[in-house]
Amino acid sequence: MNALWDLAARRADKPLWRLLVEMTPEELVDAADLRYLSDVLTREQAIALLAEMEPTRGRRIADLESRGGYPCYTTSAGWLGYSDDKLRRLLHQAVDEGYRHVKLKVGADVEDDVRRLRIAREVIGWDAKLMIDANQVWDVPQAIEWIRRLAEFQPHWIEEPTSPDDILGHAAIRKAVAPIGVATGEHGMNRVLFKQMFQAGAIDFCQLDAARLASVNEILSVYLMAKKFDVPVCPHAGGVGLCELVQHLSIFDYVAVSGTLENRVTEFVDHLHEHFTDPCIVKGGNYVLPSAPGYSAQMHEASVAAYSYPSGSAWSADSPS
Amino acid sequence: MNALWDLAARRADKPLWRLLVEMTPEELVDAADLRYLSDVLTREQAIALLAEMEPTRGRRIADLESRGGYPCYTTSAGWLGYSDDKLRRLLHQAVDEGYRHVKLKVGADVEDDVRRLRIAREVIGWDAKLMIDANQVWDVPQAIEWIRRLAEFQPHWIEEPTSPDDILGHAAIRKAVAPIGVATGEHGMNRVLFKQMFQAGAIDFCQLDAARLASVNEILSVYLMAKKFDVPVCPHAGGVGLCELVQHLSIFDYVAVSGTLENRVTEFVDHLHEHFTDPCIVKGGNYVLPSAPGYSAQMHEASVAAYSYPSGSAWSADSPS
Repeated sequence: MNALWDLAARRADKPLWRLLVEMTPEELVDAADLRYLSDVLTREQAIALLAEMEPTRGRRIADLESRGGYPCYTTSAGWLGYSDDKLRRLLHQAVDEGYRHVKLKVGADVEDDVRRLRIAREVIGWDAKLMIDANQVWDVPQAIEWIRRLAEFQPHWIEEPTSPDDILGHAAIRKAVAPIGVATGEHGMNRVLFKQMFQAGAIDFCQLDAARLASVNEILSVYLMAKKFDVPVCPHAGGVGLCELVQHLSIFDYVAVSGTLENRVTEFVDHLHEHFTDPCIVKGGNYVLPSAPGYSAQMHEASVAAYSYPSGSAWSADSPS
Repeated sequence: MNALWDLAARRADKPLWRLLVEMTPEELVDAADLRYLSDVLTREQAIALLAEMEPTRGRRIADLESRGGYPCYTTSAGWLGYSDDKLRRLLHQAVDEGYRHVKLKVGADVEDDVRRLRIAREVIGWDAKLMIDANQVWDVPQAIEWIRRLAEFQPHWIEEPTSPDDILGHAAIRKAVAPIGVATGEHGMNRVLFKQMFQAGAIDFCQLDAARLASVNEILSVYLMAKKFDVPVCPHAGGVGLCELVQHLSIFDYVAVSGTLENRVTEFVDHLHEHFTDPCIVKGGNYVLPSAPGYSAQMHEASVAAYSYPSGSAWSADSPS
């Protein structure tokens, strides 16, 4: 489905975000999969949400162009296993590159987390946003206890505190750790899960994944529900090629759906972009608006050949890992 | 995992249900996957639930033997697409075979459903239980409206009224259509989904599937939560070999977990048992207690050979379909 949207945009000779923002509200809703959602969003409501923003789309495209693109944050500084020195160096580098949001992994050892978050605040200060990500490591009661230990560092959000399927668990955690925001979605398998996350008041940030949901058709539905429930969407992009995809979605969201950048920031991970024919361009903490036709999904033929399993050269025994 | 449990029971020279009912509460809980469940069930609580039933296990084994086995219902009468005459004939046959529960598919056309349910009540009377199954066809508001149209036939449960992932949707439907019970679970992908179904009061009947959950290890966790929340488990068995598996689980549940047959009835579909070396035996609306060693999961070598894709004879062009 992602390949089809990529082809559709190439055929129209436009980047995907532009193809989408040139569609009418009715065309967009026709493409959205609304099945199982009518208890929270009807077709008529979806069209009305989009129609309200339609007259001002052009203004927001101009705004993105003038501000240098769509805001992003970096995950590259804060992996577990980095030494304190490396963490400090990468955080300084992120600040120097213009990032106002950084994210650290947590959840292996609470004393380590306290020390690492202290280093992070020393480097980035208290005005920049500091996010933490537990990658599903905790049960619900443990999540609440652990996050409260880290509250002194004023995390902007806690990401994936528990099982990604646990709607009611996220709602309980959110209630217990406010004002720290709860974020999840990279493992959200379909729109029915997101519907319930919104209904239950379970999340402060919706981190949909462009390659886990059923492409633009299902993603549109999640953006429309997020608009209705006033939950910011901050897409997940920690995967090969995900940054290339989500930049289009975030731009579309701002221009045609949400109409705001408040509390919006899209992930950026600086890995493996060299395999794509139209890699995303990030400058000063922003995704620069893509201009090449397509969904930026095409890989270099040499990369596809080298990494195709099992015949690609990367899989041969004497290949460097 | 199912094959491993099958092998473990064969190695012990016991049917799986007997292997399980001879394990101590601690051994059973060691085998159960309790991760992400501690907000509703701790290890200590799980052991206590099982320990309470342990002294009387033998009495319930004797009870099942004397009553002829574990009660089941048939789905074979009520498929959509059967003519009214065939439906009537199959329902008469089910009654003659001793069934006190029958299930009909609904959801394609409401007037057809009304007519078919009227036929069913004419044949089975009003003392037998009549279940209906929509196989996920409705959105939540439509489900409520449709089920209310069928309420005059006093369905025992409505099965899969909407998306199997929609915990809050099932809870809303259940509230709206009571006293008709809500049943789901055959597409319940893991214990975290079932945990929330119980927490939200979303279901009256838990229809776990022996081959969708991660085998006995995850199934144990669902049975333990069902016990705590006092929700009867009526396993799904509409699939090749599922009847063979679930009979062991239902017997184990009665003997070691729930301790009751009230509102419990396990699905039986009379299809494709001939491919198994130890097919389940159903008599008078009961699964007869299996006596052969294993989880009844082994297929005949000839069946495996014929249906292995793509080399099996069943896949060749001139094979009868």
